Amino acid sequence: MDQQVVSAEQTSREEALVDLVVASFDQAPDPRLRQIMQSLVRHLHAFVREVRLSEDEWDRAIRFLTEVGHRSDDERQEFILLSDVLGLSMQVVAVNNEAYADATEATVFGPFFLEDAPFIEAGGDMSFGAPGEPCWVSGTVTGTDGRRIAGARIEVWEADEDGLYDVQYGDGRTAARAHLLTDEHGAYRFWGLTPRPYPIPHDGPVGAMLRAVARSPMRASHLHFLVTAPGYRRLVTHIFVRGDEIGWKDAVFGMKESLVKDFTRHAAGEPTPDGRDLGDCTWTDVRFDIVLAPEER
Amino acid sequence: MDQQVVSAEQTSREEALVDLVVASFDQAPDPRLRQIMQSLVRHLHAFVREVRLSEDEWDRAIRFLTEVGHRSDDERQEFILLSDVLGLSMQVVAVNNEAYADATEATVFGPFFLEDAPFIEAGGDMSFGAPGEPCWVSGTVTGTDGRRIAGARIEVWEADEDGLYDVQYGDGRTAARAHLLTDEHGAYRFWGLTPRPYPIPHDGPVGAMLRAVARSPMRASHLHFLVTAPGYRRLVTHIFVRGDEIGWKDAVFGMKESLVKDFTRHAAGEPTPDGRDLGDCTWTDVRFDIVLAPEER
Repeated sequence: MDQQVVSAEQTSREEALVDLVVASFDQAPDPRLRQIMQSLVRHLHAFVREVRLSEDEWDRAIRFLTEVGHRSDDERQEFILLSDVLGLSMQVVAVNNEAYADATEATVFGPFFLEDAPFIEAGGDMSFGAPGEPCWVSGTVTGTDGRRIAGARIEVWEADEDGLYDVQYGDGRTAARAHLLTDEHGAYRFWGLTPRPYPIPHDGPVGAMLRAVARSPMRASHLHFLVTAPGYRRLVTHIFVRGDEIGWKDAVFGMKESLVKDFTRHAAGEPTPDGRDLGDCTWTDVRFDIVLAPEER
Repeated sequence: MDQQVVSAEQTSREEALVDLVVASFDQAPDPRLRQIMQSLVRHLHAFVREVRLSEDEWDRAIRFLTEVGHRSDDERQEFILLSDVLGLSMQVVAVNNEAYADATEATVFGPFFLEDAPFIEAGGDMSFGAPGEPCWVSGTVTGTDGRRIAGARIEVWEADEDGLYDVQYGDGRTAARAHLLTDEHGAYRFWGLTPRPYPIPHDGPVGAMLRAVARSPMRASHLHFLVTAPGYRRLVTHIFVRGDEIGWKDAVFGMKESLVKDFTRHAAGEPTPDGRDLGDCTWTDVRFDIVLAPEER
């Protein structure tokens, strides 16, 4: 694009308009809403002015947003997808989970968490029959002070080897999700599934946008964690598979280097950590030591 | 709001995310789409980071946009309303109609223009029975070089005294809209209606947002013009009524000082410019001299 030269007279007209719009929110009784709207106005106007948005482009943007709205309901939330693929969901996670010493980093929550997932004992299997390669997951939960946390609650959930979560099966089954607790040494272990890449729903306007800009709808392979313990900050995160084919091209920008883990593959018949007989299945194992920040800073 | 202090480590995480998202558009085959998406990403992330948007606020924004989408169809376009009340429609007008010497300023087109409005002769009445106080509108069309433009086409349209356009009557009538031509001296004159303020549709989510920030949905009183002539830039504008009760509080920020005109009120029975007998009606008159920029710069 050629950089357009904007005259001083024109610049002053455009700035006067921004000031007028910002001032229209001056009387908002809620100071936080006022702050948000005024900041939004400034940034959106800066965008329109920077790209010199044409009337035809504005019209296409209106039509795109309308389609996104029409694809959003209780079952499918295309606006969340849009926020995800623009990295905005991840930026909201970032600003609400500020870097804290060596605490484990947070990432996106995603749409597939369910309350009241079944409890499993240490070493239990959270797959509940969901298809996939078994994966032994183990680690500890500690505070940033180094103290092991006994009784920390860990929720885990993931897609099966076909890239589907149980809520997408359509038959009401619960699978590939569970909660468990750390033992008296702050340790945990369970059987899950080796994560596989899968696409975000891409049959709607957001999918069309991704195709138009030559981006993939695939998410990097991951396993979700939600970890809570009294006195510590709630942690929502994933672990990712080192060497994954998607990796940093994750459609929703959830990857963080510190969350990429080695999933070591074992041949069928190789003895498992808990002596479980997996028959002729290969299996993997991964270690994930979780560090929680204190609740108050 | 207290200004939050963001650590250098946190700032660097947030910036790294912005860079990752911007880079995801690097392979977009259309350079203009790439430019638009990358600029949009930078500005939206800057907004989220500046206000430190909470997860609950993000959730409310998703729900608001979803409602806006659900209120948008062929009859009602709530996203255009949203763009209007954020001043974005007017900013798009501004960047596409750069200031040019003494040419008449542009303003928003609005949703109520119709092609093929009836032709009226010089001095004709464009109200076609729409209720309201008669208003004699006259002026000239010239180029920025001072040359009078004969045969310039002027489209005019406006709401009636109840704030309704003909398309809102629901009976298919054409009223308060017409087109006419300038005479051999570049002059024009017609009977219209004295403009009155009216609200934009405010029974949807955009109306709720305006109430939450204590803003009025009222548009400043105005009369629409679309002026075209071979060799000159197409002009879409309004004239506004000096002393109007809404004025600068116009819900869509269409007002410009240069477009505010004196509508002089005359007592019933006072002789009209063309000798028309208005019975016991008061009437007004306004002069609007239109200056068109050359087509090419």
